[in-house]
Amino acid sequence: MHMDVLTLFPEMIEGVFNDSILKKAQEKEKFSYNLVNFRDYSTNKHMKVDDYPYGGGAGMVLTPQPVFDAVDAVNNERDTNPRVILMCPQGEPYNQKKAEELAKEDHLVFICGHYEGYDERIREHLVTDEISIGDYVLTGGELGAMVVIDSVVRLLPDVLGNEESAPEDSFSTGLLEHPHYTRPADFRGMKVPDILLSGDHGKIADWRRKEALKRTYERRRELIDENNLSDVDLKVLNEFNQNDC
Amino acid sequence: MHMDVLTLFPEMIEGVFNDSILKKAQEKEKFSYNLVNFRDYSTNKHMKVDDYPYGGGAGMVLTPQPVFDAVDAVNNERDTNPRVILMCPQGEPYNQKKAEELAKEDHLVFICGHYEGYDERIREHLVTDEISIGDYVLTGGELGAMVVIDSVVRLLPDVLGNEESAPEDSFSTGLLEHPHYTRPADFRGMKVPDILLSGDHGKIADWRRKEALKRTYERRRELIDENNLSDVDLKVLNEFNQNDC
Repeated sequence: MHMDVLTLFPEMIEGVFNDSILKKAQEKEKFSYNLVNFRDYSTNKHMKVDDYPYGGGAGMVLTPQPVFDAVDAVNNERDTNPRVILMCPQGEPYNQKKAEELAKEDHLVFICGHYEGYDERIREHLVTDEISIGDYVLTGGELGAMVVIDSVVRLLPDVLGNEESAPEDSFSTGLLEHPHYTRPADFRGMKVPDILLSGDHGKIADWRRKEALKRTYERRRELIDENNLSDVDLKVLNEFNQNDC
Repeated sequence: MHMDVLTLFPEMIEGVFNDSILKKAQEKEKFSYNLVNFRDYSTNKHMKVDDYPYGGGAGMVLTPQPVFDAVDAVNNERDTNPRVILMCPQGEPYNQKKAEELAKEDHLVFICGHYEGYDERIREHLVTDEISIGDYVLTGGELGAMVVIDSVVRLLPDVLGNEESAPEDSFSTGLLEHPHYTRPADFRGMKVPDILLSGDHGKIADWRRKEALKRTYERRRELIDENNLSDVDLKVLNEFNQNDC
């Protein structure tokens, strides 16, 4: 998997790529990246990349020329047909399913704006995907791109070691994770539930499932898909419902 | 506003804080931060911060001791009663309203885990807020904390300059933004809509409002709150509805 990130602030991203799972993925040659400052592609004599909006109004707008030319350049370097992803608040809300979809690609190109809007022709004629990581306003697309990249790279084959890949990750089971406890059994008077110290693996599994259901029911009821639940799960859920009345 | 970020990967965050709006906010003395490697607070002789989960299972769990002691230490340095925020997929979904709420605080403490789960006692007895930036799995809490920090700092008074603060930011009007266009009027045969070149500001304002409604209707219908719409807006919306049939 290769990724090109078009940004005016490449040094903002460098630290994240040089750490943690992204670094390991590069060392294992599962992932490579290139940070492209699209200002370098501006044909304007002052290297400008933005201009006033047609029709007036506050804020600046990224001009199409440097962005189109930078995407052309990264495409010409490879014989691929990349997904070109625009990070923006108007985009499709990002989720784990989209991460799994993107993890199947060979080449992704990210376009990150900063403060400014994007000229609409970039959306209409250059990008294949517009993605929003959530309903909040950020100063630029860089953090969004880093979020997408991190979530995609950890899904690539052989990137995560056993110790890092929790099979019960939230969203992969459809439920929020159950509570975890580790040593010490008593910390400042706060104790670990007896059941977890019992050694009874069947009871522990039941307790964890019930706690995962409870947490999801209390916090994110809209995530629960009853089609994915067992009869025992549904009985537990019914108890929560009755207690609510 | 002061922020403490508890992380095992401080160098991952440094680049983001030294750039863009976060740097400007520090220069204007609106915002200061401290990156705290909570491994430094481990009383374990190998400086361990995680351990196996009680009850068995894959993955490691962050032990309470280093996290509690690090939070105690940053609290003792200031005479404040900070919000202590845990970044985790089980948390409250983050949105612009939460950003506005956090922007009113004087002191925020962020706890970022990495791979591991958190010992439940951290959630129950130490944190005031659990936040999730979206329904996707990341390798750590650092990117989430950076997203929250960026969205909060840009709301602090006098941080954004005029050129950066778009009064029609998505989410602040309740609608997605209308399309933007800038020079050139014709780029590779792709043209700017005539209306934007007309100089008729009334018609341009109407066109933009209609395009914002259209984009929101097509992409994020659930965001539209009819109570915030004018009679003209509702008439436009009604046309979209009829065309859908």
